[in-house]
Amino acid sequence: MKTQPLILSKDQERRLIAGHCWIYSNEVNTKVTPLKDLQPGQPVAIRSDHDRWIGHGYANPHSLICARVVSRDPTQPLSPTLWLKRIHDALALRERLYARPFYRLIFGESDGMPGLVVDRYGDLLAVQITTAGMERVQGEILAALEQVLRPKAIVLRNDTSVREMEGLTQGVEVILGSPEDRLTLVENDLEFLVSPLTGQKTGWFFDQAENRTRLARYGVGRRVLDVCSYIGAWGLRAAALGAEQVVCVDSSLPALERVADNAARNRLAERVQGRHGDAFDVLRALREEDARFDTVLLDPPAFIKRRKDEKDGIAAYLRLNRLGMELLEPGGLLVTSSCSFHMGRDVFVRTVQQAARRAGRTLQLLETGQQGPDHPVHPAIPETAYLKTLFFRVLPEF
Amino acid sequence: MKTQPLILSKDQERRLIAGHCWIYSNEVNTKVTPLKDLQPGQPVAIRSDHDRWIGHGYANPHSLICARVVSRDPTQPLSPTLWLKRIHDALALRERLYARPFYRLIFGESDGMPGLVVDRYGDLLAVQITTAGMERVQGEILAALEQVLRPKAIVLRNDTSVREMEGLTQGVEVILGSPEDRLTLVENDLEFLVSPLTGQKTGWFFDQAENRTRLARYGVGRRVLDVCSYIGAWGLRAAALGAEQVVCVDSSLPALERVADNAARNRLAERVQGRHGDAFDVLRALREEDARFDTVLLDPPAFIKRRKDEKDGIAAYLRLNRLGMELLEPGGLLVTSSCSFHMGRDVFVRTVQQAARRAGRTLQLLETGQQGPDHPVHPAIPETAYLKTLFFRVLPEF
Repeated sequence: MKTQPLILSKDQERRLIAGHCWIYSNEVNTKVTPLKDLQPGQPVAIRSDHDRWIGHGYANPHSLICARVVSRDPTQPLSPTLWLKRIHDALALRERLYARPFYRLIFGESDGMPGLVVDRYGDLLAVQITTAGMERVQGEILAALEQVLRPKAIVLRNDTSVREMEGLTQGVEVILGSPEDRLTLVENDLEFLVSPLTGQKTGWFFDQAENRTRLARYGVGRRVLDVCSYIGAWGLRAAALGAEQVVCVDSSLPALERVADNAARNRLAERVQGRHGDAFDVLRALREEDARFDTVLLDPPAFIKRRKDEKDGIAAYLRLNRLGMELLEPGGLLVTSSCSFHMGRDVFVRTVQQAARRAGRTLQLLETGQQGPDHPVHPAIPETAYLKTLFFRVLPEF
Repeated sequence: MKTQPLILSKDQERRLIAGHCWIYSNEVNTKVTPLKDLQPGQPVAIRSDHDRWIGHGYANPHSLICARVVSRDPTQPLSPTLWLKRIHDALALRERLYARPFYRLIFGESDGMPGLVVDRYGDLLAVQITTAGMERVQGEILAALEQVLRPKAIVLRNDTSVREMEGLTQGVEVILGSPEDRLTLVENDLEFLVSPLTGQKTGWFFDQAENRTRLARYGVGRRVLDVCSYIGAWGLRAAALGAEQVVCVDSSLPALERVADNAARNRLAERVQGRHGDAFDVLRALREEDARFDTVLLDPPAFIKRRKDEKDGIAAYLRLNRLGMELLEPGGLLVTSSCSFHMGRDVFVRTVQQAARRAGRTLQLLETGQQGPDHPVHPAIPETAYLKTLFFRVLPEF
């Protein structure tokens, strides 16, 4: 596909000059460069209305974000050479930071590859493509990944609803090798059985790895409650740090079976138990039972998926955090997360504080964690910063 | 002094109900409870205009913040019992988190003792009192500290200009023992000679300790530049992590002498050199010399001390960060701090990003650090969150 020009409307280059890489359809001068003349995934050379060079990128006339900048260097268009360079740059960071090959290798915009996510599970790569622009060069990307990483298996985990916004179909496909849906991942010296073909996301939540590591700094005490445990990453970490009774709560029975399996693999079975049910129901039941914990870990799915869910979502975070802190011993640790981009950091802190006031507790915020460094934040693209993990000490009201 | 009532004006309790503890003089119903009837430091029982209980606190009619809530429990007025409880609560957190007795023991509002800061250097306590309310009960506080911690020495470091806002005089006073102005502090297995009587703040910046520890996660490479080094806490940490050439920049010759002394104590003298001068001048000189570093550490004093300094301050952060990142090798690490409360986290990120655009660099934000957990943030009191330390990977422009 030939590169086409894309000209912005007057004064629409400001955000891009500041470093963002998204162009909305209402920012394009469609009289000069009509979007309807472009194919989904079309490579474009982007300029401002007064002919200032912006960058090479790709377009999708059917998406609200109608183009994304990929390279600001005029001599470096979208090409296999560029993908190789980006993958090498991304790998260099992860190899510097991770002793073992388990991490997010490519995090979209932050690694200069908008629309692409790659998780590395040793010899297996789980790839997710979310834009028509990346879909068009999928073959080049996969070839570049093979060349740099020599994986034994590549799985395309395109089963995400985000693809709909770009008019792409959903599905899972094995691209290379014949991987089993069971592999062993190591995090903080714990082994976990993970399902890269059928698990949530690509099978593992790498974004919380750093925060789980950090738990050692604070200590977890004897009794730990892990709410929305999935396959036990937080709960087992707590058990390995010395907790004697860890209760993992999840609404998925298969996830809790995996918790038990993972606990047994790490000889922690006696310390870890599953409790099946809706998080709110289980927390209320525990309150009825007068249960108390030294640490409560809250890591729910995003309650605010879209801006319009904001009010209900905040109310849900408020309820969950109130229930969680009411189960804590005085001076206990609350580690509470929100992965909703639409729940800003400050609003999240305010919401947990509101929960504390209603529960008659005083909070001390010890640390504010974000997604780990294999999910770097692009400082000009707020959308790349989505995870907040707050470490609170919870005291009786001052 | 007898406890007096303090009644708020209509609808002025909202921020206090949410958990903040400051009352501004324009929020008081001075017809019912005239401020002029109160003494500086007077204990007050605070209620809303419709007689809702707010809390016990203390007042200062001469200050813009005319009162602070200290206890929301009606049965727990300001008293030696309360101070003991607060000190025990604060100590329990630090003893849980710190292997050695070097930390901020009391961090004002966040520890339920507005107007009081206590830094612990082993057997020596450095105490700072910044409000008339705390000044009035100084004897009780010091007695409670002695009872709980049995220190050999207590130093009153009341040489801070903040005291002027409360009409208090400045000075340094030894309260207990006869401490020398030289003690040995240990941080991350490094020994530092510290001056608790004459050093900046109370002699050490405990608030950055956690971020210095964190440096190990990222690695520092071979050549490190430590800008505004003070007595070498960052620079020596980098040397201990393996850096072969560490350049410490400071405008204070005594600070640089102490850097050399501290480096020698830790057998790192060959790796650490001082460079005297204004930070901006030295950075420009290094640029002229084509110097390059693998890690640049920027930890300047607050450029925005008051709201009115905002514009100039942001410009200074912009210049400093641009100069810093221009000295980095591609893929290098920039660890940049702002301890200005008036420089919000988001504005700081935006400013560094702006510097990157001007310098033709792409940033990846790997982590956002704050002050360590011995300076807990009170989630309802934004003023308690002042330190931002950003860990960036700096790449050539994407």
